[in-house]
Amino acid sequence: MSKTFEIIERVGISTESTNDAIRNVIEEAHKEKPVAWFEVTEPRGRVTQDGKIEFQVTVKIGRKLS
Amino acid sequence: MSKTFEIIERVGISTESTNDAIRNVIEEAHKEKPVAWFEVTEPRGRVTQDGKIEFQVTVKIGRKLS
Amino acid sequence: MSKTFEIIERVGISTESTNDAIRNVIEEAHKEKPVAWFEVTEPRGRVTQDGKIEFQVTVKIGRKLS
Amino acid sequence: MSKTFEIIERVGISTESTNDAIRNVIEEAHKEKPVAWFEVTEPRGRVTQDGKIEFQVTVKIGRKLS
Amino acid sequence: MSKTFEIIERVGISTESTNDAIRNVIEEAHKEKPVAWFEVTEPRGRVTQDGKIEFQVTVKIGRKLS
Amino acid sequence: MSKTFEIIERVGISTESTNDAIRNVIEEAHKEKPVAWFEVTEPRGRVTQDGKIEFQVTVKIGRKLS
Amino acid sequence: MSKTFEIIERVGISTESTNDAIRNVIEEAHKEKPVAWFEVTEPRGRVTQDGKIEFQVTVKIGRKLS
Amino acid sequence: MSKTFEIIERVGISTESTNDAIRNVIEEAHKEKPVAWFEVTEPRGRVTQDGKIEFQVTVKIGRKLS
Amino acid sequence: MSKTFEIIERVGISTESTNDAIRNVIEEAHKEKPVAWFEVTEPRGRVTQDGKIEFQVTVKIGRKLS
Amino acid sequence: MSKTFEIIERVGISTESTNDAIRNVIEEAHKEKPVAWFEVTEPRGRVTQDGKIEFQVTVKIGRKLS
Amino acid sequence: MSKTFEIIERVGISTESTNDAIRNVIEEAHKEKPVAWFEVTEPRGRVTQDGKIEFQVTVKIGRKLS
Amino acid sequence: MSKTFEIIERVGISTESTNDAIRNVIEEAHKEKPVAWFEVTEPRGRVTQDGKIEFQVTVKIGRKLS
Repeated sequence: MSKTFEIIERVGISTESTNDAIRNVIEEAHKEKPVAWFEVTEPRGRVTQDGKIEFQVTVKIGRKLS
Repeated sequence: MSKTFEIIERVGISTESTNDAIRNVIEEAHKEKPVAWFEVTEPRGRVTQDGKIEFQVTVKIGRKLS
Repeated sequence: MSKTFEIIERVGISTESTNDAIRNVIEEAHKEKPVAWFEVTEPRGRVTQDGKIEFQVTVKIGRKLS
Repeated sequence: MSKTFEIIERVGISTESTNDAIRNVIEEAHKEKPVAWFEVTEPRGRVTQDGKIEFQVTVKIGRKLS
Repeated sequence: MSKTFEIIERVGISTESTNDAIRNVIEEAHKEKPVAWFEVTEPRGRVTQDGKIEFQVTVKIGRKLS
Repeated sequence: MSKTFEIIERVGISTESTNDAIRNVIEEAHKEKPVAWFEVTEPRGRVTQDGKIEFQVTVKIGRKLS
Repeated sequence: MSKTFEIIERVGISTESTNDAIRNVIEEAHKEKPVAWFEVTEPRGRVTQDGKIEFQVTVKIGRKLS
Repeated sequence: MSKTFEIIERVGISTESTNDAIRNVIEEAHKEKPVAWFEVTEPRGRVTQDGKIEFQVTVKIGRKLS
Repeated sequence: MSKTFEIIERVGISTESTNDAIRNVIEEAHKEKPVAWFEVTEPRGRVTQDGKIEFQVTVKIGRKLS
Repeated sequence: MSKTFEIIERVGISTESTNDAIRNVIEEAHKEKPVAWFEVTEPRGRVTQDGKIEFQVTVKIGRKLS
Repeated sequence: MSKTFEIIERVGISTESTNDAIRNVIEEAHKEKPVAWFEVTEPRGRVTQDGKIEFQVTVKIGRKLS
Repeated sequence: MSKTFEIIERVGISTESTNDAIRNVIEEAHKEKPVAWFEVTEPRGRVTQDGKIEFQVTVKIGRKLS
């Protein structure tokens, strides 16, 4: 019994929180194809021109290959 | 003057947020024996069958050896 | 055309959340000199004497050298 | 003279062995497009409900971009 | 809804193969308490006095805290 | 306000220089879809049969998901 | 022929030296159960209120499971 | 006989090459105070609005504390 | 009482399995000089022209300096 | 309640021992501003022209921002 | 079918560029024995007494064991 | 102007201290060929049969190729 999964890497962005950035990425990827698991690899960010903190979170996503 | 600490590793789970997952682990470990410090090592997660994002956060916990 | 940036490292502390700890650091550094980008490198913490969880988040901050 | 390759990431699963999990991933990816090289990045696993050890091996695969 | 897992670290040894070393560790830990997942972190080994190759595999094991 | 980026991984090859290998990869990927940023992860290479040094540079590329 | 070892993680503290901090941890752990090997993973420290340098050394310890 | 050095972290930018980005950083830092050694830690970049590749190279610089 | 060991790095190749690739390297190095211990650092591979999977395993080998 | 710390990086040098090199760095930094904690990141060294071993130890130092 | 490769580690030096430093190392090692592949692991450098930037590049080199 | 260095890896052993283990390795390697620099990569150890702590320190050594 053998199955194969793909891992894709996405970056989510949010001015709310790192969790919100993760949710944005996962929900979008889940609509394309069901997400099995994810791994948060690199929380970064910047300050926007109007002074807001923007969180940019890199997420690795595992999905079953159809 | 010499003291020794143990480090244990736990995984907390929450569908709310990564902070909530950390709090669950720390509060539970703190009840057993006072927690001196902790380190978050690996934020992961999955999508549950009813479509919720579940955060799984690995935490290393330092506690004084009695 | 050539520009140079400095990277400094700070630790923010908050009993609210890791995002709050990051915001504290970035907002303070941004007042000194505009923050271009940041990177979260090491979420740690401790339990305070009155039993609160204190998040300590190490942040690398990039700012344009004037 | 210049050529470009893509790197994709897959997870293979097998209850036989880690080598078997690698073979499953490589053979499947090779059918889609010839595999030039691969790199094994993360051997993990779980115990299935009927008590079998399931190996889950993450493999990075390099293939020539057509 | 919140659950907590412990992560323990064990080293399995086998003169057969790395898979055999992993199986030895997992099966033994599973008898004590059901193993949820595992991660292979450090394959090492030595040559025994009678010239056999001994595989020593470090495995991190996740188990539900009861 | 929320946006999502994809990260893809490519390997560029050049007998000129590592910069040339990076340029080959970025220019090709940019033609498909605009490249937002890139990260150089693994400079390797080989000596070709006619004795030339071939640089093989792995590049992670961030592009806006359309 | 198969044997299993546990790996535990401890932090030793000393105002003398990092070696002294390692010795404190190993000697204490060895009294509980014979130590097979150890690995020093993270030398840290702090300055105490009376101005002494305190070394805090994290040590991974391998011991035979009985 | 004892001496102390500081390590600072800077990012150099160039649309020519990674070497040029390193040179920009080192030459600027050297004018402030003599540079003893440096270490290149993270080659990244972006594509500028007029389609040029911009190299951004993070450099750690060691300088004698005066 | 003081002894010194050398560490050398070798790559073993096998179309059978990663264990077979490790055995090839260790047995060959052991014939030259007794191998004290080894560490597996990087499992990679390629698909050969006749479609076989070739495992390439990097092994660090410790041997007593004579 | 929120506080911010700076992290600076220094290299201490000693022909006595690594502990001595650490002490040199910490004591000097502590005179400028109280040191809260430190982390030893990279023990290196060289052989001096008169044949002495010189230890060069990189230390990350956390201090409260005033 | 089984073959074994050695991996050696060298540092190349050049005041021209990192590519030039790599070429120096590879060409010298290739004259001794054919180089199969190489990996660039650690670009460092210093400023020479006459103010030139000297690049020091560590390269791992794979060569077939004869 | 171009020079090449070799990097070799050795393990020193001492029941006195980690510094003593480093000294043993460097002094021995220096007698064979002058040591330019060294890097301490992995402090480990074991408890000997008569209950002594034995430090085993892995050291990378740079020496000019003649």
